[in-house]
Amino acid sequence: MRSLLIEGKTSMTETTINVLNRINGPEDVKQLTLSEMQQAAAEIRHLVLNKVSKVSGHVGPNLGVTELTIAFHYVFDSPKDKIVWDVSHQSYPHKILTGRKEGFLKEENYHDITGYSSQFESPHDYFTVGHTSTSISLAVGLAKARDLKQETGNVLALIGDGSLSGGLAFEGLNNGAELQSNLIIIVNDNEMSIDENFGGLYHSLADLRASNGQSPNNLFKAMGFDYVYVEAGNDLPTLIEMFKQVKDIDHPLVVHIHTEKGHGYEKAVADKMTYHWRGPFDLETGAPVTDSPVPSENYNTILMDYLDQKIVTEQLPLVAINAGIPGAFGLKKFQAQHPQRYFDVGIAEGHSITFASALASQGIRPLVFHSSTFLQRAYDQLSHDLALNSNPAIIIVKGGTITKNSATHQGLFDIPLISSIPNIQYLAPTTKEELTAMLDWALAQTEYPVAIRIPEHGVAHSEPSVFELGKYQTLKAGSQVAVLALGGFLPLGEKIIAQLANNHQINATLINPLTITAFDTATLDVLAANHEVIVTLEDGSLDGGFGEKISRYFGGTALKVLTFGAEKEFTDNEALVNLYERYHLTPGQISQEILTHLSNK
Amino acid sequence: MRSLLIEGKTSMTETTINVLNRINGPEDVKQLTLSEMQQAAAEIRHLVLNKVSKVSGHVGPNLGVTELTIAFHYVFDSPKDKIVWDVSHQSYPHKILTGRKEGFLKEENYHDITGYSSQFESPHDYFTVGHTSTSISLAVGLAKARDLKQETGNVLALIGDGSLSGGLAFEGLNNGAELQSNLIIIVNDNEMSIDENFGGLYHSLADLRASNGQSPNNLFKAMGFDYVYVEAGNDLPTLIEMFKQVKDIDHPLVVHIHTEKGHGYEKAVADKMTYHWRGPFDLETGAPVTDSPVPSENYNTILMDYLDQKIVTEQLPLVAINAGIPGAFGLKKFQAQHPQRYFDVGIAEGHSITFASALASQGIRPLVFHSSTFLQRAYDQLSHDLALNSNPAIIIVKGGTITKNSATHQGLFDIPLISSIPNIQYLAPTTKEELTAMLDWALAQTEYPVAIRIPEHGVAHSEPSVFELGKYQTLKAGSQVAVLALGGFLPLGEKIIAQLANNHQINATLINPLTITAFDTATLDVLAANHEVIVTLEDGSLDGGFGEKISRYFGGTALKVLTFGAEKEFTDNEALVNLYERYHLTPGQISQEILTHLSNK
Repeated sequence: MRSLLIEGKTSMTETTINVLNRINGPEDVKQLTLSEMQQAAAEIRHLVLNKVSKVSGHVGPNLGVTELTIAFHYVFDSPKDKIVWDVSHQSYPHKILTGRKEGFLKEENYHDITGYSSQFESPHDYFTVGHTSTSISLAVGLAKARDLKQETGNVLALIGDGSLSGGLAFEGLNNGAELQSNLIIIVNDNEMSIDENFGGLYHSLADLRASNGQSPNNLFKAMGFDYVYVEAGNDLPTLIEMFKQVKDIDHPLVVHIHTEKGHGYEKAVADKMTYHWRGPFDLETGAPVTDSPVPSENYNTILMDYLDQKIVTEQLPLVAINAGIPGAFGLKKFQAQHPQRYFDVGIAEGHSITFASALASQGIRPLVFHSSTFLQRAYDQLSHDLALNSNPAIIIVKGGTITKNSATHQGLFDIPLISSIPNIQYLAPTTKEELTAMLDWALAQTEYPVAIRIPEHGVAHSEPSVFELGKYQTLKAGSQVAVLALGGFLPLGEKIIAQLANNHQINATLINPLTITAFDTATLDVLAANHEVIVTLEDGSLDGGFGEKISRYFGGTALKVLTFGAEKEFTDNEALVNLYERYHLTPGQISQEILTHLSNK
Repeated sequence: MRSLLIEGKTSMTETTINVLNRINGPEDVKQLTLSEMQQAAAEIRHLVLNKVSKVSGHVGPNLGVTELTIAFHYVFDSPKDKIVWDVSHQSYPHKILTGRKEGFLKEENYHDITGYSSQFESPHDYFTVGHTSTSISLAVGLAKARDLKQETGNVLALIGDGSLSGGLAFEGLNNGAELQSNLIIIVNDNEMSIDENFGGLYHSLADLRASNGQSPNNLFKAMGFDYVYVEAGNDLPTLIEMFKQVKDIDHPLVVHIHTEKGHGYEKAVADKMTYHWRGPFDLETGAPVTDSPVPSENYNTILMDYLDQKIVTEQLPLVAINAGIPGAFGLKKFQAQHPQRYFDVGIAEGHSITFASALASQGIRPLVFHSSTFLQRAYDQLSHDLALNSNPAIIIVKGGTITKNSATHQGLFDIPLISSIPNIQYLAPTTKEELTAMLDWALAQTEYPVAIRIPEHGVAHSEPSVFELGKYQTLKAGSQVAVLALGGFLPLGEKIIAQLANNHQINATLINPLTITAFDTATLDVLAANHEVIVTLEDGSLDGGFGEKISRYFGGTALKVLTFGAEKEFTDNEALVNLYERYHLTPGQISQEILTHLSNK
């Protein structure tokens, strides 16, 4: 195989796979010579880059641990020896070496394996993981189970890429340190989170790197761990020797390994944040490859422009907070414009909310940017630290939607989560103008924490308006059937209204609720007067969602309430069209259900 | 004042208050001589013990920081200088010195102030806090707000009593270390959590205590903090001198102070766990004082006996896990019987669930004991780490109920929280026999994580039975009205049924649902056939609760569904009878509402 990868100018399709042809499991790795292992590393990089550049995926994390993964399987005996990959976005090399290389070799098999570890996929995986900072707690559990069952074997956790700043990782360390038996925590220190690292922890890691592990400022030793430092984290002989030394150790140990994120592909080394995860891209030029044109408008830009304008023209005391994923919200632009007002707290979702609550208590107006799936990590902070204190922080929620995402990254539980908490007002705009009106309202009041659910199906527009809390908007007044179409599902509501009118001569009412957490009792009571069927549409899970609230509200009436949304389940990389069909979310399915519930069709 | 407190044999009512008479705010503390401050400390202890022994409250935490609090107010300028009390169960001395002593002096004023800090009570408090580990994140927010507003002043957080093991505390430390300005974190090291400390962190603290702060194993220095150690944490001159030295420091500092929990009251020093929080007790003898006799049966004992029996007679691989509050579940008995199977992970609710998930993945059967209010701190661990992995851990939920608790310790949101997560089966027994049948079922299957909501209104009994998931129990078959009375509200359902029969000649149906998360569609569809009104009763918040699920299920029918439970709000020390009245939860109110919804009354 040509070594073009290192120079970043290979024509990937030319490369031939040799060593990996003989690898069908960890036992085959043990037969390799050092030079064969080095070639295997190059071949793994080739497969990873080839697949990811075509179908998207994690780049830098996998390239960075390629040698480490080979060395692990050369020295340890998986699955008797167990390794838990934190987040598991760096487990592609592990998958390739544990019988799943077909999922990287041929395009038709690409989707046979998931992007994260999965116990349903291989006996060499133990958990389905996609959120950060869980590996140490999971490994402590595996180690304790081993001890209780009086079994033997090594238990390892590999954590890095910023995951160490999450509180759960610390809780795991605190407990792991007390084990009286084998536990090996590999700190994969690539000097990065998804973005650059932030926090005192990383000064400690930097001190240790600078001193070849000798600095007295050693977080791990302070917590009671034995400690080993490895500088050459992408050097196979070094890693093999180190693993041989620590294998079967009888107490908790931290192995701090300095790796290079993106190692072996110079573009990924040069721009670690871009290449953390990428959509399809051209391997030669690094340019993104996409079928669909980039939309001229998006809510990230709208939000950043709004914040900038409020700061510059109105001198509002705004700050923007996020927890380690600024790219998801376009916040780098805000950081450049207002560096003193920008806070990336690292992967620490809980802290982001508690910190915001305190800022808001002092007259600062924080906007905290979160993905629905990661906001789950801050439930008690939303409840006890923010809502109970009624501090007027604003939470921007993206990814609150039914998606084709991995099961680990589902974002359809935000309405149940947020709207079950007292005091927080959860709002669902459907257009840019509604979003800015809600932000204006949220900033003009100091009574409530406010969460805003960004609609997920493109930017729409409406006439400029003034937002009123708990006041629904009647877009079309009709009779018999009223459709309450929440947030990003308003276009679905419009389609249903059109079908009912065109195909069934039903003049249905269309409502844009805008507020999830407050009933517009005036509007609802008017609906009750001349409608027979109420329909709710929400882009999320039905259990604990908006529809159930409406259903409860009308519980004492003769009105029928039909609720449409997602079933309560974790779906995994399932096409949206299939999900909609299964959840009866197509306009045709919904219209049919409405008709069956009308007395006079 | 006699110094009898120290010997623990005072007749408290004899003591006279002298110095405190002159203290109406921090400015008065600054006028005191050292000996007056020492007398003030004795008087504070007197007031705290006197009140707490009568009406219950936190003992040891407040006695331990009495000198520290006086020294703080002597040196710093509250509220310009701000202190955040972690958990705030040690803020009684602070309350006494900041204008709230009346709440301790006279019995008629005892309930004028809350047991936790409250910004609604005093300008010297900034947050309502009752959960642990939040103070550092809150202080980082206060400090950053000060800097953004270009103001001056010190910001302090006081954390201890085990709170440091919570992940949020670590996230706060990690972020606080990056501040370029004043931040003083007081680690109140009393060598205790609520129970004894657990975890590597505490070895670090012990090393530092043993070395007078000189040990190189220093977690705080490792994270970038400046660090000071104070051994004599109950000595006023030492504390005053130290605070003078660190006041107006221009960077983040940890002051590690060794205090004695319960200092000055020997019973509290001798039995730190019992005196962490106590119900009414006799100051002379330490014996509990209670109006109501201890019930002969309680669910703690039932659960401990069940576990012991399953281990001893059936050799099941059971383990019991809790997060720092074994006393709440009677787990000390289990620990004594089965020390190898008992895990107190410290205050680390997230880790408790993730750890349990990993244990369960390996065939160990963990039971994790949680209070509803603290389980909120593990939402994502329940969802991503446990439910997504479908590991058969069992979560025992206590305190899932409408209560007169502080707003900080409400437990009525567990049904919305747990039942919105896929895969977890949430069960609600009403009797001892149902509970054990559910445990038998949960242990016999490996498909689901199972949570069990312990009923909160005493132990009831029923015939031994076999639990079937998703099968409701029809206790009385009637017509017109069907009451679905969940868990601890079954007795309420029985009363309503009796009222309807006796006063209104309505032969209503009574259902015990048993399963919260699965519909018994067969039973529900039978109900639909010959009932007009369905009533749901749940001992928790309606938003996202059980009633809403039933309401949604019947949404497409003509049935009326009346849901009874708590409104979505944080109530604060409100009498249960008032809450029931306000929520329309008395049998009379519910019967009346039912009647108004019947067509043929």
